[in-house]
Amino acid sequence: MQNFDFRSPTYFAFGRDTEHRAGELCRRFGAKKVLLHYGQGSVIRSGLLDRVKQSLEAAGVDFVELGGVVPNPHLSLVYEGIEICRRESVDLILAVGAGSAIDSAKAIAVGAVNQEDIWQLITERKEITKALPVATVLTLPATGSEASSSTVITNTATKQKYGFGSELLRPVFSIMNPELTFTLPQYQTACGIMDMMSHLFERYFTPSTGVDLTDRMIEACLLSIIDNTKVVMQEPVNYDARANLMWAGTLAHNNIVGVGRVQDWSSHAMEHELSALYDVAHGAGLAVVFPAFMRYTMDHDIERYAQLASRVWQVEPQFKNLRQTALAGIEALEAFIRDELKLPLSFAELGAKAEDIPYLTERCRFGAQDKLGHFRPLSRADVAEIYKLAL
Amino acid sequence: MQNFDFRSPTYFAFGRDTEHRAGELCRRFGAKKVLLHYGQGSVIRSGLLDRVKQSLEAAGVDFVELGGVVPNPHLSLVYEGIEICRRESVDLILAVGAGSAIDSAKAIAVGAVNQEDIWQLITERKEITKALPVATVLTLPATGSEASSSTVITNTATKQKYGFGSELLRPVFSIMNPELTFTLPQYQTACGIMDMMSHLFERYFTPSTGVDLTDRMIEACLLSIIDNTKVVMQEPVNYDARANLMWAGTLAHNNIVGVGRVQDWSSHAMEHELSALYDVAHGAGLAVVFPAFMRYTMDHDIERYAQLASRVWQVEPQFKNLRQTALAGIEALEAFIRDELKLPLSFAELGAKAEDIPYLTERCRFGAQDKLGHFRPLSRADVAEIYKLAL
Repeated sequence: MQNFDFRSPTYFAFGRDTEHRAGELCRRFGAKKVLLHYGQGSVIRSGLLDRVKQSLEAAGVDFVELGGVVPNPHLSLVYEGIEICRRESVDLILAVGAGSAIDSAKAIAVGAVNQEDIWQLITERKEITKALPVATVLTLPATGSEASSSTVITNTATKQKYGFGSELLRPVFSIMNPELTFTLPQYQTACGIMDMMSHLFERYFTPSTGVDLTDRMIEACLLSIIDNTKVVMQEPVNYDARANLMWAGTLAHNNIVGVGRVQDWSSHAMEHELSALYDVAHGAGLAVVFPAFMRYTMDHDIERYAQLASRVWQVEPQFKNLRQTALAGIEALEAFIRDELKLPLSFAELGAKAEDIPYLTERCRFGAQDKLGHFRPLSRADVAEIYKLAL
Repeated sequence: MQNFDFRSPTYFAFGRDTEHRAGELCRRFGAKKVLLHYGQGSVIRSGLLDRVKQSLEAAGVDFVELGGVVPNPHLSLVYEGIEICRRESVDLILAVGAGSAIDSAKAIAVGAVNQEDIWQLITERKEITKALPVATVLTLPATGSEASSSTVITNTATKQKYGFGSELLRPVFSIMNPELTFTLPQYQTACGIMDMMSHLFERYFTPSTGVDLTDRMIEACLLSIIDNTKVVMQEPVNYDARANLMWAGTLAHNNIVGVGRVQDWSSHAMEHELSALYDVAHGAGLAVVFPAFMRYTMDHDIERYAQLASRVWQVEPQFKNLRQTALAGIEALEAFIRDELKLPLSFAELGAKAEDIPYLTERCRFGAQDKLGHFRPLSRADVAEIYKLAL
């Protein structure tokens, strides 16, 4: 196990009707002027935004608004938010919506109180020392941004989708009402589930040894996600299934199951290039990339893949043929993606093109020694091969 | 799943050599005058206390000292600490040691800044609105006090051992170096393991439904604890096994695996009376109480007991005889306590006496409707029966 520092200070208000506590919680965390930041459609239509506004008004918390966040949130709106925060002396940003609204809010929170240009901070991965506090009312379990230290922003002008992280970006509070997810379209539910499973896989595939507790915690989250997915796909208004999925999405990415281990994150990097180029849903891109990544890297640590297959996918281990065991686990994931999530498994189904593979590969953000990821560090040739496996 | 609020703001510095960061962390959390609070023997002999003092001095953090904490920490020392904190204007209490030092520090933290008598606050379970910040350098994975919101204090004059809780009691930071546990006597290691397993069992036995994610998280912790116990009992200096156990002790009790579910806690109440009367180790008392509690309550929810037996103790389920499955799980726990932990399983082995059962029962802190616990609420007659089962 590696040495680690860990702090997850987010206050969670979880359960039915909790959106009515937005005002009370803004006050508790010292907010005087809030930027209410949200998307375009469902939070308005569903009446959620009105309920949050009423809660703020009842608590006497002043606010300004900025709607219009889109999936894979755009840099342009971030600049607009920064401008508003500076002009209106905003002291807390409350994101109402999915990961895109929260990620956009986080970028605004950084840009509003730092001199440097926000896109420069993101692309150069500069360390920041200040940011406005961010809080959330979550409507889609997926990105884990409601408790994570990271944000992902897309620059549509340059077709770049980059992640950025700082402990200062962990939300001060997150309101999580599973009932708000009852009306999610099947496709969005599925993309969210694929995203949270990917956050667990990125942590599971590690070169670290002596990490069996976090192995088992990750497996526990995956087992619960798989079981509850089967329920919500049949019964979208099942409260407990929605609640377990929503909390699993948080645990998958606040890093409580990832401490003390080196994590991979190459699949996320490869997917970011897909959604930056084709504007596909992040979860759909991950459904295409992850099985290909697994098939390509399985021989690097066949015991770990066999463990995953046995413990999570209930594959009976073939001890004289661990490769067969491992492969059966990957096939079980593919069947789950196809039959339960009904997400694409190939470039063809996603609408991505083989001829773009050199471009996609070139755009990936390779790190030290020009490699991607930490489980089985990938060269450019490896990345191109993984994209090809996903055709 | 129940609605819940959850916040675990403790900053964890985990790993080798982390005790050298005590000074830096005290400064980061704004401390100017620290009360260094510790026990009697090992933290002094091992040189740990000196290393912590050097770290404070290097960081320019002023401190006063109060040693002498004993297991099942005494109220009398708490009064002494309160007096020092007030006199010296202490603004942070740093506990160096096991759960007893931390629990004593928490009681001092409450008493130092509240007008009312600390024992009155504890016995009347009063809600508090302020407490000094507490931080820890942990030397024994067991009580989970390094991240929990609770403390347990013994009044030797009245032979009362009472728990007290407030979110204000969660430590601001905890330093956790698994190497500090290499030299723990086998008996202390075992008592600590029994304590952390009990924290998981108290949460596992719930009347709540729709909580499969937290079920699986609890099972994950138990599985890892069982595996790593077998390692450390053979090889006390195995770093990874010690590290997994240490982090499991924190996860078992900071409530990340207990949110959204009603918890039991009757076994802890029954044990507190044993250690208050006989001054036995808390973990040893729990080893006696828990199997008896399980045998007594198993028929209340045989499916849950069968699930625990199957998932954690690897008992092959007998679907036509879940009772046999459940019982095999309890027997596996008893075998683990006897053969791996080498802890007592009966009043006789513990040094407790059958004739004290009426007194022990009478002393238990029964709650609403004169019942103890929430899984299968226990009457006085039930509690007496459980003590008898433990003879």
